[in-house]
Parts: sequence; structure tokens; C-alpha cells
Amino acid sequence: MLSPDRFFDPEPTHKTAALEIYEAIKALPILSPHGHVDPAIFSNPNYHFSNPYQLLVQSDHYILRMLFSHGVPYEQLLSDTDPEGNWQTFCEHFYLFRATPSGLWLDYTLQEVFGFEPPLNSHTAAQAYAFITDKLAQPAFSARSLFKQFNIEVLATTDPAYDKLSHHQAIIESGWQGRIIPTFRADSLVKITDPHWLGQLSALSAASKVDIIDYNSFIRALEKQREFFKSLGAVACDLSFPKTSAFTLPDSTVEAIFQKALASSANTANQEQFAAHMMMTFARMSSEDGLVMMMHNDVYRNYDSALFTRFGPDLGFDIPRQVEYTRNLLPLLNAFGKHPKFNLVLFCLDESAYTRELAPLAGAYPAVKLGAPWWYQDSWQGMQRYLNAVIEIAGVYNTSGFVDDTRNLVSIPARHDLWRRAATNWLAGLKVRGMISQVEAIEIATALAYNLAKQVYKL
Amino acid sequence: MLSPDRFFDPEPTHKTAALEIYEAIKALPILSPHGHVDPAIFSNPNYHFSNPYQLLVQSDHYILRMLFSHGVPYEQLLSDTDPEGNWQTFCEHFYLFRATPSGLWLDYTLQEVFGFEPPLNSHTAAQAYAFITDKLAQPAFSARSLFKQFNIEVLATTDPAYDKLSHHQAIIESGWQGRIIPTFRADSLVKITDPHWLGQLSALSAASKVDIIDYNSFIRALEKQREFFKSLGAVACDLSFPKTSAFTLPDSTVEAIFQKALASSANTANQEQFAAHMMMTFARMSSEDGLVMMMHNDVYRNYDSALFTRFGPDLGFDIPRQVEYTRNLLPLLNAFGKHPKFNLVLFCLDESAYTRELAPLAGAYPAVKLGAPWWYQDSWQGMQRYLNAVIEIAGVYNTSGFVDDTRNLVSIPARHDLWRRAATNWLAGLKVRGMISQVEAIEIATALAYNLAKQVYKL
Amino acid sequence: MLSPDRFFDPEPTHKTAALEIYEAIKALPILSPHGHVDPAIFSNPNYHFSNPYQLLVQSDHYILRMLFSHGVPYEQLLSDTDPEGNWQTFCEHFYLFRATPSGLWLDYTLQEVFGFEPPLNSHTAAQAYAFITDKLAQPAFSARSLFKQFNIEVLATTDPAYDKLSHHQAIIESGWQGRIIPTFRADSLVKITDPHWLGQLSALSAASKVDIIDYNSFIRALEKQREFFKSLGAVACDLSFPKTSAFTLPDSTVEAIFQKALASSANTANQEQFAAHMMMTFARMSSEDGLVMMMHNDVYRNYDSALFTRFGPDLGFDIPRQVEYTRNLLPLLNAFGKHPKFNLVLFCLDESAYTRELAPLAGAYPAVKLGAPWWYQDSWQGMQRYLNAVIEIAGVYNTSGFVDDTRNLVSIPARHDLWRRAATNWLAGLKVRGMISQVEAIEIATALAYNLAKQVYKL
Repeated sequence: MLSPDRFFDPEPTHKTAALEIYEAIKALPILSPHGHVDPAIFSNPNYHFSNPYQLLVQSDHYILRMLFSHGVPYEQLLSDTDPEGNWQTFCEHFYLFRATPSGLWLDYTLQEVFGFEPPLNSHTAAQAYAFITDKLAQPAFSARSLFKQFNIEVLATTDPAYDKLSHHQAIIESGWQGRIIPTFRADSLVKITDPHWLGQLSALSAASKVDIIDYNSFIRALEKQREFFKSLGAVACDLSFPKTSAFTLPDSTVEAIFQKALASSANTANQEQFAAHMMMTFARMSSEDGLVMMMHNDVYRNYDSALFTRFGPDLGFDIPRQVEYTRNLLPLLNAFGKHPKFNLVLFCLDESAYTRELAPLAGAYPAVKLGAPWWYQDSWQGMQRYLNAVIEIAGVYNTSGFVDDTRNLVSIPARHDLWRRAATNWLAGLKVRGMISQVEAIEIATALAYNLAKQVYKL
Repeated sequence: MLSPDRFFDPEPTHKTAALEIYEAIKALPILSPHGHVDPAIFSNPNYHFSNPYQLLVQSDHYILRMLFSHGVPYEQLLSDTDPEGNWQTFCEHFYLFRATPSGLWLDYTLQEVFGFEPPLNSHTAAQAYAFITDKLAQPAFSARSLFKQFNIEVLATTDPAYDKLSHHQAIIESGWQGRIIPTFRADSLVKITDPHWLGQLSALSAASKVDIIDYNSFIRALEKQREFFKSLGAVACDLSFPKTSAFTLPDSTVEAIFQKALASSANTANQEQFAAHMMMTFARMSSEDGLVMMMHNDVYRNYDSALFTRFGPDLGFDIPRQVEYTRNLLPLLNAFGKHPKFNLVLFCLDESAYTRELAPLAGAYPAVKLGAPWWYQDSWQGMQRYLNAVIEIAGVYNTSGFVDDTRNLVSIPARHDLWRRAATNWLAGLKVRGMISQVEAIEIATALAYNLAKQVYKL
Repeated sequence: MLSPDRFFDPEPTHKTAALEIYEAIKALPILSPHGHVDPAIFSNPNYHFSNPYQLLVQSDHYILRMLFSHGVPYEQLLSDTDPEGNWQTFCEHFYLFRATPSGLWLDYTLQEVFGFEPPLNSHTAAQAYAFITDKLAQPAFSARSLFKQFNIEVLATTDPAYDKLSHHQAIIESGWQGRIIPTFRADSLVKITDPHWLGQLSALSAASKVDIIDYNSFIRALEKQREFFKSLGAVACDLSFPKTSAFTLPDSTVEAIFQKALASSANTANQEQFAAHMMMTFARMSSEDGLVMMMHNDVYRNYDSALFTRFGPDLGFDIPRQVEYTRNLLPLLNAFGKHPKFNLVLFCLDESAYTRELAPLAGAYPAVKLGAPWWYQDSWQGMQRYLNAVIEIAGVYNTSGFVDDTRNLVSIPARHDLWRRAATNWLAGLKVRGMISQVEAIEIATALAYNLAKQVYKL
């Protein structure tokens, strides 16, 4: 069984303070304002996960990349022909995840969600596979049952701007009370040199019932779809651009670029200009319709072209790059940073920007909130670095709580628990140093675990 | 009452070591070689601060920006019509400063300087206002009395290069023994495209009695003013340039640029070249006249142009940017870095440069000293990161102690106490790990709290 | 005597765990896969070091730069005329090394290697000099005796690509069992604008017996020398380029550049292109011959030109710069990153890249391993930052253990002990927080101290 005081500093006064803070927040409902769980698992009232390998390994690119880095080929990892054999391979390599968040999450999920206690290794692999498979078939392990059992108050999915959201509609129509909300993901529509762009544009046109013949009709289609997403509960727009540049183009320039794109003759320079212009435009839209603008740029996607060509995206081969915010975001923040209806949540994988750019901006602009430490950073040390770096400059109340960003429903409690324990332990450290009182520590822990996400994402 | 062991690690051997180190340094006089306190409050022997809001809130852009980030408009924050009402607003928002240095400093100032014990919130606001207002009127709370009570040995102000330093002269002539020294701030005279540049040049001409008609007379005027500042006790020249580039232009080029500037026709490229040339020139001057060169570049000033236009500078909207030192400073360090009379103190808001560039340079060049962690970094964690990063590479004795950088006289003890406690706790950590002896810890603590500033700034 | 629990956290459960982990690894043999010890000290069976100053101070540019930064001139530091006087000067300045790794290493070396217990200062300087000098003359202090006593399993030297490796050959021929292996250092042969390049090319030609008349013969010569190095035990190729760019040039372009270089008419742009091409080429060679590719770029070498002109390289004036890996290494990693025979060990002095670029790359590409924290970072805090930053993302098993990188044989045990204690203390912290078991902690400690270096460097 997992120890109730796990992760907390061993010094007795510190641990005592931490246990008391954690006790106050551990049962708070889970808000999950950003993630990649498939809504289809909820529209089917009796959806059950098929097997442990697919659920716990195959859907998790953190795990896939680590196994690949030690020689397990994607051909095997992505194959569906022998999930039990693949599970065995995974368990043989489970030592690779020592001291990583993936390892900690899996420990939690196995023990707290499934009740499987032995350590995972080559000897226990078959036993674990049978044990979890059996559980997955039980009524208490349907997706809807787990959602309730996990005490999830809101779960946001991530959906293309042109999505018809049929699963979200089906969930609402089913009368089930689980709050599964879509998120408007629009960045693929900005990649005007991408061979799939025209197809996505057609999908947007079909979904919005707007005939997209120029930039203005493109914008109208996006705005209509944002309203449609909002009507099904969406609170946010999610953007990930290759660069962080934002500026407004003259009408004639943007129209000319758009026409080149329609003619499949836009070049890279066009695309970069268009993306910068669209970043401004999405900020303008958010200021008007109130969808929170989540932004996380400067990741080199599908870094290995051979793997991408063969196996597609989301293999773990998305590699961060340096980000410059101060100059790049100046036009956007000057124009919209003080707008009362605008919330811009900045996620970052370049930690050197925490104290240099992000926390100073979030500590000044009413619209800017710091996103949670996530992706490569949603780890114990990553969270400590985040809290140490940003809170002193931006304050607790210019941050935005936690997002789990997971594709895997059963990992949600583990990820929120890690964040709650990280925040708790950090706050206990301030308390035992006399920097805050225990009452303040509990109030801040509640904010970090629940209230901030509720406020910032308008849940 | 503030706990005597506050901020120290709770582990008993660590805390015991820390208490002993702190005991040895807590009563050392305060050296404040860089700050923004107005010298006028000392030239008037009976100066008293007008009210708590103006003293503790309005003068502090850390606090203003945080209140603004949560929706309090600058119209209200900067208004003088209702200081008590504004104080109430501030107290209602005081929770925003939890776990920030502003919060810790205010706790100290309220309790240790004013003797006000209750926590600050909406309920205690009026009581606090009345209590502090009453204190401020007492003889012991005149600016001069506070200066003595705070045990300040030297307080440096920051003054434009063209300043006539009338307050500094009046203080000396008054026979009062408080050592209030000016600092030569010259960077505005380098901004040759700024609409105020010609006016500042006239002021420099008037102050120096040099008719500035060309680059050479400009330099003569600066040198005369540096001598004038020195005659009133100045030890340093303070520079903040938009970029960190340093190189020498040919005489004819610099003269041509200067003439364009006089004709108000200099462009941005001219200004950047001129700034790089002047950085070299200021280093040359410091090597000759011995004024310490303090440098802190790469901050985007007055980031929000609408706020700047309406409310002016120093609102908290100065946002750091990435800095490159290694290549940029090469010409300057090759020319002056080994000069025995030259001290260059580098302040930095881009912490990624600590171990990568700054500490390696300070650990090699005799002239280079690392500035204190300040501004966005003068916090508990900021200080720990600084000490952890730079000391192992540059050594204790290539750093330069602490600067409080404050506009607010009554915050000085709080800020120095935070630094002394941060250094103490860090050193106690080394001591209990057997890395240094307790005797060494106390010697280093004394250096960090007092001796290094005394030596580096030639106080 | 040094305390057995030194450096460990004082909290009792933490310290107990650390002592147990350390006990399990402290006696493991030393693997030193990268360093700069002169092989000549082993080819002579009776080599003894001449004096304490030369051995402990003059060979160590960490120490030289720190003394220079406090005014001791290189004229004195590099002089051989009065080693005892220089030692006295060093001891007078030994306080500069408080809280630095140099200080900790020297403490260890003096006490554990030489048995000299008093603290080093101006009063003990003469006593220490006599004591160590006496020891150095004893049979147990010959280079070969120390090598055995230190339990060094493998010691890699660093040798120019054109080296004839006469000392390595002599060592093997002598029948002595100490495993001293060469490392193929090739970057000087890429600096085609360097005035020494043609001379080095001649040396390469002579060593390889290949007449280098064009690019292809240049490559043949390099490949022959790599085979020669391998025949004497080499396992790695060591590269340090001014920039981190990698791309392949067309054959005709690279030949044209090579011919310009032969004619001494290559320019900087040519050199940068050639370096990028050679980085690809060295990766290709390593994929074929299996020599591990160690890479550490973006250091500005011989930063102070006056010092370099007068005193030569390796004075401590090599200053790091920002590094960009994600884009720069894309061609190399796309081409070779998945090659089963290729090991690329990336060393880094820009710590901001740890979580942003390096750990994500090492956690995905089978060929990429993270190099040890070294040079400016091989310190207690540097090691903690490294472990905190990279392990959670890349995992333990995509790192590569430790390299001591020293020129000084007697410093080797001290440096490995610091690493072992740093890793131990870090792992004990995970153990007492319930993140890993004590068994796992010991297995990971063993990997970090020994197994990983053995595997990654194929020792």
C-alpha cells in the first residue's frame, strides 16, 4: 500500500505540516481543464477498456519514447496483435521508469485504482496482466464509473476546430451527469503550407456551414465554431504554434496570403506571418467570446521524420526549443493584456523563461496567467522548480492550478495527487520557515488544487 | 512578533548552526550601495513621511504591478486624493503577496519598524493606517532618525548624470553625519533617439559648464560631472542599456553619429552603435577615475505603451529579456577586464546566465564581480538559486554582497535582513554537510553581509 | 580526518539511508572515460611528481583562474623558478576556494591521498609543502602505484588525432596491467582557418601514412587513425566545436572548401560549413567503427586574447555560450540517432538546455546519452541540478555516469567521491520520500558510479 506520507520531506515538523495541509485538500474534486482523453469512452455508457497494455502503455507517449530509447521498436510497441506479450516487454523494462513521474503515476494507478500491490517486473507481468484485465471487465471499471469514482468535476477534451463534437452531444443527450467539455484546438488551421490544410479547411467549412472563400469567411467559420463549442460547454481555445510571434497584418496582406494558401502556393514565410497574425486574431476572439486562450509554443513536432512518416505523430518525439516571450508577445499584450474578459494561460517548456519573462509578465498583466508545469515538467522536481521560480514573482494568484494533459483516464487521479502532494510539501516548507501561516498554507493549497483552475478557466 | 529563527531550515542541527551564524552578523551596519531613496528626505532635517499608503505602497512598483494584475487600476493606485481608501484597497488585496518577498518585507517593516503586530487585511486596515500614521509623526520616525536607527553606514542614491546634487550638498553642509552618496546614472544620455535627449544634454551642459558641441565636449562634460559626483562621495556609475553590446567606433563614426543626434536625425541603428561605443567609454572612464561600473542590461522598459503614455515609467512594467554576455562583453573585458582600478559589477535578471556566463567570467577576470540577486530575484528562492549557482564557480570573493535597490527607506532593514538570513541559512547548510567549518561560515556570512560590498564599492 | 558522513543531509533518516547507499558503492573501481592526465607518467615505470605546486596547482586551470581573478599574475603562476614560493602564495589565497569543488577536492586529496590533516593557509604552507614533497618521493607515490592504489579500472587520456600514441604503446609493451587508453580528439583538424591547421594536417598525414591531397584522403587518414587508436584501446572520439550545427554538404562543396583550406584561403563561413559537415561525418564514422562520440560545443576558447598570446591555452579563460540543440542536431539525429552502433554523449555547460532539449532528446533517441555534469558544473550543486533536471525526463539509464576530466592524477579519487556522494545523497532523498526503495537506490547508485559508464563507453 502506498504510504500516506509519501513524497513529503522527512523532517518531522515539515512532514507534520504537510500531512495536515494534504488532509485538507486530498478529497477536493478534480478539475481537468486540459487533456486528451477520448470523449467516445463516455458517450458509450458501457465502455470498458480492452486490456492493460493498450490502456496503460500504448496510449502514453512518455512511456513509448522511453521504451524506444532502450531499443524496443515502435513496430512492436504500436502493434495490437499481442498485447500480453507487449505488456511483458514493458514490465521487463519498468526499471527504466525509476525516479520518473511515469513510474510514480503507474505505482499509484496500479495500487490505488486497481489494487495491484506487487512491484511491476518480468516476474509479476503475467499476474498483473490477468489481475488488471479482470478488473477492467467489472462494472466499477467502466469509463463512466471510473469518472465518478475519481470525483472528477469537469474533464476537458481537446478537439479540432472543425470537429462536430458528436460524442459531446451524445453525452449531453444521454442525460449522464458527467461534465465532459470540448476544447477548441485551432492551430492546425494555421499551418497553411501543410498538405492537410485544405482538407481541414473543408471540414471547417462543413462543420460551420460557412463557405470559406476568403480570409473573412475563414474567420467567420472559426467564430461560429467557437460559439458551437461554447454551446457544448467549452471554456477554452488551445493553441500550439511553432513560434511565438504575434503581430497584425494589414487586411490586404492577410487576404493575399490566404488566397495563396487556398491555391496551395503559400510558402514558409507566408505561414509564419499568417501564424503571427492569427495569434493576434485568436486573442481578439477570446477577448470577445471569453474562451480562455491556452498557449504553448516552440516545440519541434515530429522531430524524427522517418518515425513520423512511418508511425505518425505523438510518439514522444516532440522536442522543445528556446522561447522568447518578451518581444514576441508585446503586440498581443499591449493590445489585449489588460482586457477584462481575456485570460491567456501560458504553458512553457523552457524553464529559463520562468523568472526571466513569464512570471514578470503574469505578475503585471491582468490577462496573463501562468500555466501549470506540464509535459516534460509535470514531475516532482519540475513542480518544485515551477513553484520556487514563479510564485515569488507572480504570486500564487496569477497562476492557474494544474492540468493533467493525459490521454489515459485512469492516470488522472495519480497526476493530480502528485501535484497536490508537490504543492503541499512546498507550502509546508514555507510554513515551517515562518513565511506563511498554516491557515494560509491550506488556503493556498486549496487554490492550487482547485480554486485557481475553477476561476481561471471559468469552470 | 517575528520569530528569531524565521526562514531557517527546521532540521535542528541546521537551525542551530544558522542561529549562531546569524547572531554574528545581524547587528552589522547596513551598506546600501545602490537604491532609489530620494535624497530630499535627508536634506530637510525634519522630514516626515506623509502617510502609510504613499510610503509603503505607492512608492513600490512591485506592489503596484501586483495590485494592477488583479484589477486595481493605476488611476486609483497613483491618486493622492484618498490615501486611506487606497490603503484599505491594498489591505484587501494583501493576500496576493503571500509567499512573495514584498509580503515578507512588509511583515518585517510593520512589526519591527512600526511595532504593528496584527496581520494586514480588510479588517485591520483602518487600525493599521491610524497606528502607522501616528508613528510617522513622531520624532523617532523622521527620515534622519530612521536612518540612524537602521544603522545605515552608507546609503547611495541614484542620480542623473546632469543632476546638480543640491540635496547631497545640503546634507553635507548641514553637518549631519549620515553618509548619503550620489551615484552617476548616465544611460539616458546614451539614448540619442529619445525625444528628451537634447533636453538632458542641455542639462548636462549646464551642470558641467561645458558647451557640448561635439562628441569630445560631450565626453568632457561627462568626465567633469563624474568628478563632481565623486567630490560629493559617489563611488559608482550605474548603467542600464537596452542591449549588452560593447565595441569601440572609429572617431569619425562616433562624431558623425553624435552630430546626427544633435540634429535630431539619429536612427535606431545609430543609437545601438552609440550605446555599444559608450559602454566601452564608460569602462575606460571607470578604469581612470575608479568609479565602480554597475551594469544591468536587457530589460524592456515601459513595456505597455498605453500605460507608459498615460502614467509614465516605473509601474512594474519593465520586463527582462535574454542576455548574451560572452560574445557581447568580449571587447570590453579584453580591453579593461584586467585593469587594476576597474570594478565591473554585473547584475542580471536572466538566471540562465549565472552558471553559463556570469560566474565563469567573474571567476576569471579581476575586474568582474557578480552583482546581488535583485529586482525580480531579490527573494528567498532567488537568493538560494544565486548562491547555489554562482559561489561554486566564481567563489564567494568574486561576488559583491547585497544591494537593496529600494525607493522606500523603511523597507531597507527588511531587505537586508532577508539577504542576511538567506546567506546564513545557505551557509548553515554547507556547515552541517561538512563543506565548510562554522568559523568559515561566519567569515563568509560577514563578507556577504558587509565586507564584500565595502571592498567592491570602495566604501 | 574527513567525516564519513560528509556532504549528506543532516536529517537522520536521510543520513542513515545515504550512509547505507554509499557503503554499497564506495569501493567500486573507478572508471575514468574522459580526462587529460598525461600518459607519459605511466610509460615511465618510476615516474614521480616533482613538487606539490606543479602537481596540485599549476596543472589545474580552475585554480589558476581563481588566483588570477584575485590579482596573482600568470607570470608568477606559470613560473617554475620558485615552486615553494608559489605554493605559499596559493596557500595564502586558499580561502578563495571555500565552498567550491576545488576546495573540496583539495581537502580530500591532502587528507585521504597524502595524509596531511591541518587546514591549508599561510601558516601551514611550508609544513604542507615539505610533507607532500616527502610523500611524492616515496615508492607508494609513483604514478603507477597511485593508479593501483586508487583502484582505477580504466583511465582514458585525450590525444590529438595525429598522435603516434607512443606512451600508450610503451605502456602496453611494458607489460604493466594498468589500462590507460587513448581518446581520439579531432576538433583541431576541423579548424581550417587556424594557422596551425596545415601543420596538424601534415602530422595526420605522417601518422596515418596517407597522403592528404583532398577531402577523401583526409577522411581516409582520419579513419585509419581511428582504427589505430582503437587498436590501442580507444573507445571514444572527443569533439568540441565552436558551434553546434550539423549538416551534410554536397561532395563538390566540401571538396572546394577543402582545397581552399589547403591553399590557406578558407574563410570563417567555410570553416563553419566544414565543421557542420564534419560533425555529420564523425557521427557516420562512429556509427561504423563504434567509437563513442563525445561532444561539448559552444565554449568560447581562449577568451582573453592578450593572455592567450602571452601564455597559451588552458588558463581557465574558456567561457561557455548559449547552445541550441533541437534544430542544430536534427539532421544528425535523424540520420544516426537510431543507429544501434552509435553512442552520442552530449556534455553541456548551458544548464538551461537540460530540461528543454537534452533530456527530451536523450529520453527518446537510442543513441543519445547525457554526459556527466562537468567543468563549471562538476560541483555539489551542479550535480544536484543535473540529477534533479535530467533523471525525471530522460531516466537514469539514458545518462552516462561520471567523467572526472582532470589533468591531475591525484585528484581523481576526490572527484569520483564527490560524484558518488552527490548521487548517494540525491537517491537517499528519493528513498526517504518513498519514491524509490532502498534496493533501487543502491542499484541506481551502482549504475551512476560504475555500470552506466561501463556500458555507454563500452569499457
